[in-house]
Amino acid sequence: MEVELLTIGTELLNGATVNTNAAYLARRLSEAGLPCQRQTSVSDERAPLLGALRESMNRSDLLITTGGLGPTCDDVTMEVIAEVTQRPLVYVPTVAAAIRRFYTRRHRRLQRMALRQAYLPQGAEALPNPLGTAPGMWLSEPGRLFIALPGVPSEMRVIMEQSVLPRLKRLKGQPAIESRTLRTVGLVELSIESILRRIRIPASVQIGLYPNLRMVDIRLTATASSRGAARRALAACLAPLRCALGASMYAEGDEALEGVVGRLLVKRHWTLAVAESCTGGLLSHSLTNVPGSSRYFRGSIVAYENRLKSQQLQVPASLLNRFGAVSAPVAGAMADGARRFANADLGLAITGIAGPSGATASKPVGLVFLGLADGRRAMAQRCQFFGDRSAIKCQATQAALDWLRRHLLTRQ
Amino acid sequence: MEVELLTIGTELLNGATVNTNAAYLARRLSEAGLPCQRQTSVSDERAPLLGALRESMNRSDLLITTGGLGPTCDDVTMEVIAEVTQRPLVYVPTVAAAIRRFYTRRHRRLQRMALRQAYLPQGAEALPNPLGTAPGMWLSEPGRLFIALPGVPSEMRVIMEQSVLPRLKRLKGQPAIESRTLRTVGLVELSIESILRRIRIPASVQIGLYPNLRMVDIRLTATASSRGAARRALAACLAPLRCALGASMYAEGDEALEGVVGRLLVKRHWTLAVAESCTGGLLSHSLTNVPGSSRYFRGSIVAYENRLKSQQLQVPASLLNRFGAVSAPVAGAMADGARRFANADLGLAITGIAGPSGATASKPVGLVFLGLADGRRAMAQRCQFFGDRSAIKCQATQAALDWLRRHLLTRQ
Repeated sequence: MEVELLTIGTELLNGATVNTNAAYLARRLSEAGLPCQRQTSVSDERAPLLGALRESMNRSDLLITTGGLGPTCDDVTMEVIAEVTQRPLVYVPTVAAAIRRFYTRRHRRLQRMALRQAYLPQGAEALPNPLGTAPGMWLSEPGRLFIALPGVPSEMRVIMEQSVLPRLKRLKGQPAIESRTLRTVGLVELSIESILRRIRIPASVQIGLYPNLRMVDIRLTATASSRGAARRALAACLAPLRCALGASMYAEGDEALEGVVGRLLVKRHWTLAVAESCTGGLLSHSLTNVPGSSRYFRGSIVAYENRLKSQQLQVPASLLNRFGAVSAPVAGAMADGARRFANADLGLAITGIAGPSGATASKPVGLVFLGLADGRRAMAQRCQFFGDRSAIKCQATQAALDWLRRHLLTRQ
Repeated sequence: MEVELLTIGTELLNGATVNTNAAYLARRLSEAGLPCQRQTSVSDERAPLLGALRESMNRSDLLITTGGLGPTCDDVTMEVIAEVTQRPLVYVPTVAAAIRRFYTRRHRRLQRMALRQAYLPQGAEALPNPLGTAPGMWLSEPGRLFIALPGVPSEMRVIMEQSVLPRLKRLKGQPAIESRTLRTVGLVELSIESILRRIRIPASVQIGLYPNLRMVDIRLTATASSRGAARRALAACLAPLRCALGASMYAEGDEALEGVVGRLLVKRHWTLAVAESCTGGLLSHSLTNVPGSSRYFRGSIVAYENRLKSQQLQVPASLLNRFGAVSAPVAGAMADGARRFANADLGLAITGIAGPSGATASKPVGLVFLGLADGRRAMAQRCQFFGDRSAIKCQATQAALDWLRRHLLTRQ
């Protein structure tokens, strides 16, 4: 099956917007066993859009467009699809009613313009948009399928998840697809590849690796004639893979590392405090991205200056003088200081050299020490990361969260 | 001039990587007066790449590719360009020498494979890659121009900036282009549009708006027959625009808001400390993204728990009880507490409700108070933001940095 994406919008063509829609759709389609062969972006002007749509249509069996479904005259995607498929645009009363309800619920007056969005090519089905007024569109013709989605990422995603993916999976003649994502931290791609080589992977299972610095998602997709067979193929390699990954796997599905850490803290009724130096607040920011993190996250100190490390985190001046701020003893003392400072059960600390300056002969850019204290003892870990300032901050944060997670796992 | 981008890589087609290269190139080309009409992504397999390259070549005058220039057999971009342009691949000794130097400097043994990258289509020029071994390629034919760049973003960008953009600007028959970006904070797009309507903009000047929550970049591009004429057209609208934007413009060019704040602090020899609640560390993270921020940034407290606000930031319990943690008096007291805590000249604070939970009838999600203290007084500001947890954290951080910047501007 030939699958193509056509993402429409002047903001993509002038670089004002990074095309996250294409990446999201490509990943979800790939997971559904319908990998796309080509992605095209054009502006929302009529002529280039018409040209690109015709070409994509001629090449593909399934074409998904995003963008150009808004209420203004600039939004011409529906018209162009109608023209290419030689269907008139018809008024769909159920869509109009949904648009009216949308305005009523928000206590806003209906803009007449908004009802332009109630016109769809004849024979197309509207896909409900719970977050906005532009419906998605599903248009099935012999031998080909058109799907049009709005360009606003949240609206596009909800229609894809609620209406498009379930239908795609039921398509006649489509093999059954089952997929699963295992999320790992601390293993490089090469190590994961060598683990995968040692496991017997059925030919029906495809594997994709999605790396983000020290974290790699492993996606397994099984394609078979029945759902049962796909599930069995997946199960056959999931069990040994989980076993081989061990504690390096932090989640199955889409839970974030900081969410897993939060869940483990809640389960143990433990609270956490943080001390950061080179990451400058990124660890705290990640922890507090989890809704409800106030249940276990007490707070943190970003001690950029050494005086704060000694005065507020009670890191002994003797340690700072003897070993320097970027050292294992100071990382442990910072973790313990954070714990006492916020009266928390656990303290987690990061100190290091994010660069580009600040390195010495013995302490290169990317050298980071992590500290972890639980009231009985304070531990430290040495890491060496590579990349620019931002990559080093990010890797140090991932490593600190991972250490805390592993520590919590052993304290069942 | 028809301009197209062809971004090559399986990681784009399966969604493992978001296509930031396309956005960057589109923006830089647009700024250079060469806006692109179409972006296409295909995998690095030979057949689809060949097809897409032929089509793009037939449609465009300038075609830029990224990706597929590595040393392995999977990297076929050069071969495919050679095939499409009917030129043999030839060994370029200067490129081979650069590859050898790259390995020597890193004390690594030369991989034989790496020398595959020394073969370019006959007649093409190599564009030096200071960060890697894959050179860029510039191939000019009558009526069309091919440029091939590596897929690694840092390498692609440096070749684009150092070799491609300067040459594109010198192309024969190209009109002269001058562009300038004014960066604003605190104005919504509609306000900027209304300011722009009040200014006389010459027909030769194109305007693009690039919004990111509360920050909008305004890019002005003048196209004229000579550089002097383009500069004059730009100057004619830059002066009144700067004047109309006033202090809402924080930079010209590409300096970040946190960089501007840092520069102003350095100039005044002032130090800064931060207290954060709902932003959970994002403000500190932003401030410390600036290399050298340790010169003025002392540190911060993320006081997620009220007890930390009272015990460590010395926010009077009476204020917390009477007004609640999300209030103007507490924001001001937090700022002053941060200042004293870290013995800094200035304190900056954020307290608010990032959601999705935590709202009350009188304090909705998105309500945020900012605090600023300079030792003589503590001030507070009320803001209401919209969006999800992440958007609210981000807008609150932008607003706090902006307030500090405006405060520093009035203290010349």
